[in-house]
Amino acid sequence: MKKIAILGSTGSIGTQTLDIVKHSPDMFQVEAISAGYNRDRVIEQAHQFQPKLVSVATKELADEVASQIPSHIKVLYGEEGLLEVAAATDADLLVSALVGSQGLKPTLAAIEAGKHIGLANKETLVSAGHIVTEAVARKGVALLPIDSEHSAIFQCLNGEKNAQIAQITLTASGGSFRDRTRAELEGVTVEQALQHPNWSMGAKITIDSATMVNKGLEVIEAHWLFGLSYEDIQVVIHPESVIHSYIEFVDHSVIAQLGNPDMRVPIQYALTYPDRFPTPTSRLNLAAIGKLHFREMDYTRFPCLRMAFESGKQGGTTPTVYNAANEMAVARFLKGEITFLQIEDIIAAVLDKHESYANPLIDLIHEQDQWARAFASSIRF
Amino acid sequence: MKKIAILGSTGSIGTQTLDIVKHSPDMFQVEAISAGYNRDRVIEQAHQFQPKLVSVATKELADEVASQIPSHIKVLYGEEGLLEVAAATDADLLVSALVGSQGLKPTLAAIEAGKHIGLANKETLVSAGHIVTEAVARKGVALLPIDSEHSAIFQCLNGEKNAQIAQITLTASGGSFRDRTRAELEGVTVEQALQHPNWSMGAKITIDSATMVNKGLEVIEAHWLFGLSYEDIQVVIHPESVIHSYIEFVDHSVIAQLGNPDMRVPIQYALTYPDRFPTPTSRLNLAAIGKLHFREMDYTRFPCLRMAFESGKQGGTTPTVYNAANEMAVARFLKGEITFLQIEDIIAAVLDKHESYANPLIDLIHEQDQWARAFASSIRF
Repeated sequence: MKKIAILGSTGSIGTQTLDIVKHSPDMFQVEAISAGYNRDRVIEQAHQFQPKLVSVATKELADEVASQIPSHIKVLYGEEGLLEVAAATDADLLVSALVGSQGLKPTLAAIEAGKHIGLANKETLVSAGHIVTEAVARKGVALLPIDSEHSAIFQCLNGEKNAQIAQITLTASGGSFRDRTRAELEGVTVEQALQHPNWSMGAKITIDSATMVNKGLEVIEAHWLFGLSYEDIQVVIHPESVIHSYIEFVDHSVIAQLGNPDMRVPIQYALTYPDRFPTPTSRLNLAAIGKLHFREMDYTRFPCLRMAFESGKQGGTTPTVYNAANEMAVARFLKGEITFLQIEDIIAAVLDKHESYANPLIDLIHEQDQWARAFASSIRF
Repeated sequence: MKKIAILGSTGSIGTQTLDIVKHSPDMFQVEAISAGYNRDRVIEQAHQFQPKLVSVATKELADEVASQIPSHIKVLYGEEGLLEVAAATDADLLVSALVGSQGLKPTLAAIEAGKHIGLANKETLVSAGHIVTEAVARKGVALLPIDSEHSAIFQCLNGEKNAQIAQITLTASGGSFRDRTRAELEGVTVEQALQHPNWSMGAKITIDSATMVNKGLEVIEAHWLFGLSYEDIQVVIHPESVIHSYIEFVDHSVIAQLGNPDMRVPIQYALTYPDRFPTPTSRLNLAAIGKLHFREMDYTRFPCLRMAFESGKQGGTTPTVYNAANEMAVARFLKGEITFLQIEDIIAAVLDKHESYANPLIDLIHEQDQWARAFASSIRF
């Protein structure tokens, strides 16, 4: 029986993690869950999975939730709640599935508490890859990637040696606007941007797929997860999202991981690694799919990906600022304040004004994150 | 420095093995080579690689070769020569690359002598899988597949557990006549059959690709190599031969091995396993390739593959007879005695007449092999 805690239990990755647990109740015990504002869902999850600890966004919500679930379940809130869910339970493994930079501190706390990490929160490595990888090595915990591309690379690396990698290639579906030219991106609506062709995901990550910021964050994450230089990380457009990513080894043999787009496979793999168990997913049938397409990434069409590579290479606080600027820009786009193409304008303006600090500690990362958010909010067009 | 011996040094796999050796002379020492009738090539190889032992087909050839190479190189011939090359040298690893059932005895001798096996000779496992796998387990040697499909599966299994395989899929280019209907196969010529779309191989294996016998032998080989039931082995048509084969695990995650069609990658992998080193091959560029196609295997269009599955399931001497009938039929087709479609008629007739013996020893396998050849030669249309 593996004991798990989940940061972000009511989000897309959190609910699918609990779906895996529900499917194999003999294998997993849920120790703790954290949710934000989704009161009804977290109450339902508390009843169904009987964790020892639940955390929500605010004191008011916590009081409300506490009144509607069994009294032996402890209810906390805010940052303290996130830290307790992450680090203060008997869980063996934390599924870190908060969206955005708020995932960093509790994930680090879990590593310091000796917990293995199932990492769906990209920003943890993007902002603090140097701190997280050091802590992971020092504590001897496993850092198990949950998003499909990194799980693919991680699976392809089974039994192989990192030093024998020639390069890795992350595949990118191209997102909602894959087949539009830049001119056709003027005036696209929020609703259009939220129609992802392959994956059903949260709003923020769906927009990030359309801008290719998501792939950019994945590139930076891959750099830290697999210890690769940016020159050894490629991106190729693969509309079907069937090949999730692949490794070319020094002998030019390529190992790829494939599957139907279903996050429950990488989630479960992180929970059961190095073993595999049946999942409630559909089987891949390449003959029924018929064709797989690939084309080169166009860095003019997708400047956010170019900026991600540049930010990653610069390092220090730059990836933090790239990510924070994007988070704020996406929030403004979703609120209707700016156009789709102005997301990249905001990122570019914030990066342009930013002065990078090397090897930042958490406080400086946080400070630069806040600076980038404030500046990104202030930009008027 | 790894010491290797090669059965079939002047054939397609043998010459590519020596190409690998030439490319990394510090890594490999050639102890012994066997060739058939290609006198000039074997003399050239003896000069270039300075083995301690050379074997050729006949005493006359042996005398001729001996007179033209340094006198410290021992020259043998015939079956005794094959057995000495396979088993009587200091080699760590034997590359077993004879074509056809003549590879069986020397490969078994090498296993009994404690040598690791790089296996390109399919018939060894097809005819005597039960004997070979028992000997391999008992002697604790590695059985390293050299053809591209099995090497692909072997590479995909790195770090994984056989018990967690749901099924494997061998990809098939479809061979020279992939896009012809059965009606259009009437009257095709030997020259047409020898034009393989992707791989440059020997004549016999090129014909076997066109009839899908080659894939059938691979299915039987995979059964033994990976300990899988025939129900867990699939074949899919993939014209580009870029995905060399793949494994679906129980969680429905699929791991595939890809590359440009170049046998030097699987050959070198067998020589350097579990490590990988640079190969003199071109890198795979999926964006440049653009599209990969897949379609279901058609067992009506390719009855030889259906017969292979049936022969494998029946087991005993049946796969031997399947293979022997095909060897004879292909030889008769290459000599112009029969038409292309009569290859399958001969296999079907021989299988129909054959009475299978379970768990045959080598002598019975040999006897049934001879019976099938004689009968296959005698069939008139």
